[in-house]
Amino acid sequence: MLDTDPTTASQIRQMPVFKDLDDSAVNALVAIAKPRDVPEGTVLCQQGVPAEQLLVLLQGQVALENTSPSGVSAVVDVVAPGGHFMLSTVLSGLPSLMSARTVTAAKLIGIGATGLRELLHREPSLAAALLRAEALDFGAMVRQVCDLKLRTTAQRLGGYLLALTKETSDNTVSLRLPFDKRLLAARLGCRQENLSRAFAALRGLGVETHGARVILHDIERLRDYALPDQSPATPTA
Amino acid sequence: MLDTDPTTASQIRQMPVFKDLDDSAVNALVAIAKPRDVPEGTVLCQQGVPAEQLLVLLQGQVALENTSPSGVSAVVDVVAPGGHFMLSTVLSGLPSLMSARTVTAAKLIGIGATGLRELLHREPSLAAALLRAEALDFGAMVRQVCDLKLRTTAQRLGGYLLALTKETSDNTVSLRLPFDKRLLAARLGCRQENLSRAFAALRGLGVETHGARVILHDIERLRDYALPDQSPATPTA
Repeated sequence: MLDTDPTTASQIRQMPVFKDLDDSAVNALVAIAKPRDVPEGTVLCQQGVPAEQLLVLLQGQVALENTSPSGVSAVVDVVAPGGHFMLSTVLSGLPSLMSARTVTAAKLIGIGATGLRELLHREPSLAAALLRAEALDFGAMVRQVCDLKLRTTAQRLGGYLLALTKETSDNTVSLRLPFDKRLLAARLGCRQENLSRAFAALRGLGVETHGARVILHDIERLRDYALPDQSPATPTA
Repeated sequence: MLDTDPTTASQIRQMPVFKDLDDSAVNALVAIAKPRDVPEGTVLCQQGVPAEQLLVLLQGQVALENTSPSGVSAVVDVVAPGGHFMLSTVLSGLPSLMSARTVTAAKLIGIGATGLRELLHREPSLAAALLRAEALDFGAMVRQVCDLKLRTTAQRLGGYLLALTKETSDNTVSLRLPFDKRLLAARLGCRQENLSRAFAALRGLGVETHGARVILHDIERLRDYALPDQSPATPTA
């Protein structure tokens, strides 16, 4: 029996998906976990085949994309540090609907699909954690569906900016967009020119932009505008 | 030990979610399954609390809706016969993001959450089937996200009509919309007036409507238009 790698064990414990695991499950995961350092633009998983690893992201950004037969791609989501991806394909063995590509250089932990599925039967705390994580992943997609059906691009942008700020006590915050505006437009489901219009619409609500730097001068007002679904039935033409 | 109810057993075997179960798992499910007949407009599950039952739909239509704190509702999906709902909340024990409401009178089978979770540990074929079903549910939401980000309302309507027809050999088919146009608009994520415009746009592609009756005169052409993501980057303003 190998000693548990203390670095990997502590990294795994810090990931939201694994935070409630007991020691036995963490040790079992560490034994099959592989740290990965990859450059920008690396394709980690291919659409159309079952993923070989569950991936948890320590540093960097990863885009999850779906490409149609005609070659048009939708950015389904962009994963931030602390996030995981490929869970449902790994648990089910079904082909992934999405590819995963690093948008920046990234540090990840990969956990082999076969080993993970074997552990599920032996480690009840892991099975519970993964069913919970899968429900949260499903919920994130449900929220996007609702956002896209009910909210304007400017409201979706406002909600996205609010999600980037952790501060809740101050009414003003400065933040950096974690990736470029082309990718942000694709993530929000709009064209780049509509993203510019959405930023312009938010200016009157105290949203100031200088390239990737964004200052929210009135979080409360922005929240009132973006979050409570005050939009008409739908903005989609 | 009770004898297995042959009607419920055969209904369970016919549901896509349960089609690969072995006999032991089917019998265990039948023992905890409860048939339900409910009138139109019945709220089967409430948003914000964990669902008490996994529900499989034998007859009728069920709308899954998310309501924001301000009271605006999005129709996330409409379940057709053969479909199931509330799986992820039942497996995880997390509050449901959606309520479920019958759009027509409906026949369902309800399977209690606690009993189902207990069975998971004893019946490997059930665990595999439910992980697979959860991945497919996740995939359905991913597809909606992609549709909403990439396709116009007319393309989404075309794709929806194509999904209603099972026939693939003929190029012409007649079908009935399974629910009213108000709900169809909400499911597609558009206003009713935009749905009318979308139907008008599809007329040139051989889509003829008489109230709820729809004739697709040229399935191949409609498929070329609606499915291969030939739209611009996004239709959303």
